[in-house]
Amino acid sequence: MPQSTLARLQDDLGVAVSTDADVLDASREDRSGWRSATPPLAVVHAASVAEVQQVMRIAYATGTPVVPRGAGTGLAGGAIASPGAIVLDLSRMNRILEISEADELAVVEPGVLNGDLNDALAPLGLWFAPDPASRAISTIGGNIATNAGGLLCAKYGVTREAVLGLAVVLADGRLLRTGHRTVKGVTGYDLTALMTGSEGTLGVIVEATLRLRPIARGEVVTVAAAFSGVDAAAAASAAVAAARIRPAVLELIDAAGLARVAAHLGPHGIAGTPIEHIAPGETFLLAQSDAEGAGIEADLIAEIFAATGGRVSRSADAAAGERLLDIRRAMHPALAASGQVLIEDVAVPRSRLPEMFRAIEEIGRRYDIEIPTIAHAGDGNLHPNFVFTGDEVPDHVWAAADDMFRTAVALGGTLTGEHGVGVLKRRWLADELGDDSYELQRGIKALFDPTGILNPGVMFEASAR
Amino acid sequence: MPQSTLARLQDDLGVAVSTDADVLDASREDRSGWRSATPPLAVVHAASVAEVQQVMRIAYATGTPVVPRGAGTGLAGGAIASPGAIVLDLSRMNRILEISEADELAVVEPGVLNGDLNDALAPLGLWFAPDPASRAISTIGGNIATNAGGLLCAKYGVTREAVLGLAVVLADGRLLRTGHRTVKGVTGYDLTALMTGSEGTLGVIVEATLRLRPIARGEVVTVAAAFSGVDAAAAASAAVAAARIRPAVLELIDAAGLARVAAHLGPHGIAGTPIEHIAPGETFLLAQSDAEGAGIEADLIAEIFAATGGRVSRSADAAAGERLLDIRRAMHPALAASGQVLIEDVAVPRSRLPEMFRAIEEIGRRYDIEIPTIAHAGDGNLHPNFVFTGDEVPDHVWAAADDMFRTAVALGGTLTGEHGVGVLKRRWLADELGDDSYELQRGIKALFDPTGILNPGVMFEASAR
Repeated sequence: MPQSTLARLQDDLGVAVSTDADVLDASREDRSGWRSATPPLAVVHAASVAEVQQVMRIAYATGTPVVPRGAGTGLAGGAIASPGAIVLDLSRMNRILEISEADELAVVEPGVLNGDLNDALAPLGLWFAPDPASRAISTIGGNIATNAGGLLCAKYGVTREAVLGLAVVLADGRLLRTGHRTVKGVTGYDLTALMTGSEGTLGVIVEATLRLRPIARGEVVTVAAAFSGVDAAAAASAAVAAARIRPAVLELIDAAGLARVAAHLGPHGIAGTPIEHIAPGETFLLAQSDAEGAGIEADLIAEIFAATGGRVSRSADAAAGERLLDIRRAMHPALAASGQVLIEDVAVPRSRLPEMFRAIEEIGRRYDIEIPTIAHAGDGNLHPNFVFTGDEVPDHVWAAADDMFRTAVALGGTLTGEHGVGVLKRRWLADELGDDSYELQRGIKALFDPTGILNPGVMFEASAR
Repeated sequence: MPQSTLARLQDDLGVAVSTDADVLDASREDRSGWRSATPPLAVVHAASVAEVQQVMRIAYATGTPVVPRGAGTGLAGGAIASPGAIVLDLSRMNRILEISEADELAVVEPGVLNGDLNDALAPLGLWFAPDPASRAISTIGGNIATNAGGLLCAKYGVTREAVLGLAVVLADGRLLRTGHRTVKGVTGYDLTALMTGSEGTLGVIVEATLRLRPIARGEVVTVAAAFSGVDAAAAASAAVAAARIRPAVLELIDAAGLARVAAHLGPHGIAGTPIEHIAPGETFLLAQSDAEGAGIEADLIAEIFAATGGRVSRSADAAAGERLLDIRRAMHPALAASGQVLIEDVAVPRSRLPEMFRAIEEIGRRYDIEIPTIAHAGDGNLHPNFVFTGDEVPDHVWAAADDMFRTAVALGGTLTGEHGVGVLKRRWLADELGDDSYELQRGIKALFDPTGILNPGVMFEASAR
């Protein structure tokens, strides 16, 4: 009689295997607000590549689904327990294996937190550029699995551009190495890029060789302004681009978002900032320049903001700059204070930002909901937020999100700029990709995961395998 | 009786189909010195996506191999006629379809020359960063098909990072669109990156959406120095990195190369430069800084070069900077003046450059050949050159190259940094990738090209399909 999957896991992996009800329950959700219907079979806290390989061998032999998971900070339900699955928790594989100053690279285990790596790098004058807003709490493995974005992408690129190579445990437990320790390398297809953003559906990332950057010399200068409306702020953002300026950060908060932020921070939090005396309908734009010439660039930005009608504040002082950034950082807490938040993640070509903002407003009116929105204006990535009460995302919210996704794609954009497809957006995937691309992507999935055990239901409908 | 492939092509594509002996013959070679054994069946000069689709439909129906080709400037035999093949020449698809200043992107046909695009962009203050040395004569389609590198990659990235989306004609004639008009986008697997560098083996690139950059403000400052040997120059290069400086250009010419360059340029060409009075064994290092702070950065570099024993020349004057760059540019002409040149293309982690240079010297001694070498020192990509006479690469040159590839891989590098695998290096592909990766890559090839008609023999052994 064949031994049960759980017994085999326990035999081979011992105390790394947890069936504790609280542990199982915690693996049912991420930061998206989504919660899986059932707990998993077990959570395995792998501590080594060999353990990950052993889990995959057992899963492969028994046809058991595996959900690779890091810190659980995802926003698309890409790493949550599915029925009968092994949740393969990689957060204990959190060693920085190597930092090469000479080659400006780091080799890390997947569970290293983005922020911890950067803390280790800073004294060396080096920096891992990918900067999701979650960087203090999210893992490098998760950043790579979702090809995470962040605030700095227009200038410094997405995660894919900072990954030189990977070690990946395949569905059957074999260990695949991709890429090089070099910036260049064109030997064969780019499997490193293919794995980046694949959301645990092609393999389990167990090691990453990361490209580092020198920390830029020069100061950091912050420019912020309040504008009469979203069109004015978008026009100011477009004028910055037209002046051939690419600031490190360029963030736009719409009127609905800004009103909530101002209320949340209170009079003390906004004193002395451009939003100290906001009128209804006003919006906020924040730019940050870094590196050599930051002061000159910030001056140009401040001029542009003023010329397009902004009430401008400029600061080269770190503390004052942080106070301005705090306004942007307050967006999520301000929303979370009044309910569950579903953060959407569409992206459109930068020139279509005003149209997308208008569409969001129109969709809000149609469904009678407010949709406070923040945008990475430098790269056209918008986060419209739905605030609701209760555990389940209401149907009319999904209907509104559906309208939004279709609009973004029609404007030449995408339904997810940086959060991933996960389980939340899989039903729109084929619509955006078209049949030919969808079919090829399914083919790639089948090639790497012929028995469909890797994160089933993520990215593709489970029935599709 | 079924119509012949050639007759079908002629019926459907008319004068676009050439069987002129000179045209067929010209398609047998690229700039690698490699020449295919036989001419192709025909060369089709496609002028539209529809024509490319029609060629692929005929090829698919008749099982005829297709070799996509741009300007024929490749260095790995990746786009040369194979027996019985249709050479699909895309050089007439050379329209710039769109330049969006607001979105900092361009949409181009594959036959647009890299230099022509940049000429069109410059008046707008925009720039397509990929800069292969061939940029004046190579096509964007070819740049993408090989994931071309160049001199600027350490600072500005490889071609992959400048491609937002593609239109690709698949093996059976269907048109696939990948990517977005946005910098961010994580909807499904990254097929844009998969296609980039796939050397015509997965599909025919017929349109590309390219990410542009603002032309950097500030001056361009050039610093060059002669050093007593390759170790001293490599040490200077490492010291630049250690100072957390990432110049736009950092090029190293070894002693064998520099002697030939100096002889080629003559006394007039080198007067006033650091190589005016070179001693035997001296080497050359050239750095260029751009953007805001270029002057400060160049001062630091000049100090480092001097402190590591270099005879330094620094120039912020454009003409004087060009004279220094001319030394680097003279490398290939200097070699080509004395025979056929096989340009190799290994890459190693930057810190291993001294070891790689020593290995090249040792390999040269072993096979009794001089191997003049130039390196993109900023990213560890070396071009060791073999100069020989006659049409065929001599066996002992391949044996030396073989030793070199194995050394580069053993040092954590790759056998091709930016030129591609083509037909020249396919026999080493499996060795570098390992069995698991090779098998997966073959699987991807089979998924996109089930009947093996797309550039057979390139990247993989023809027998492998």
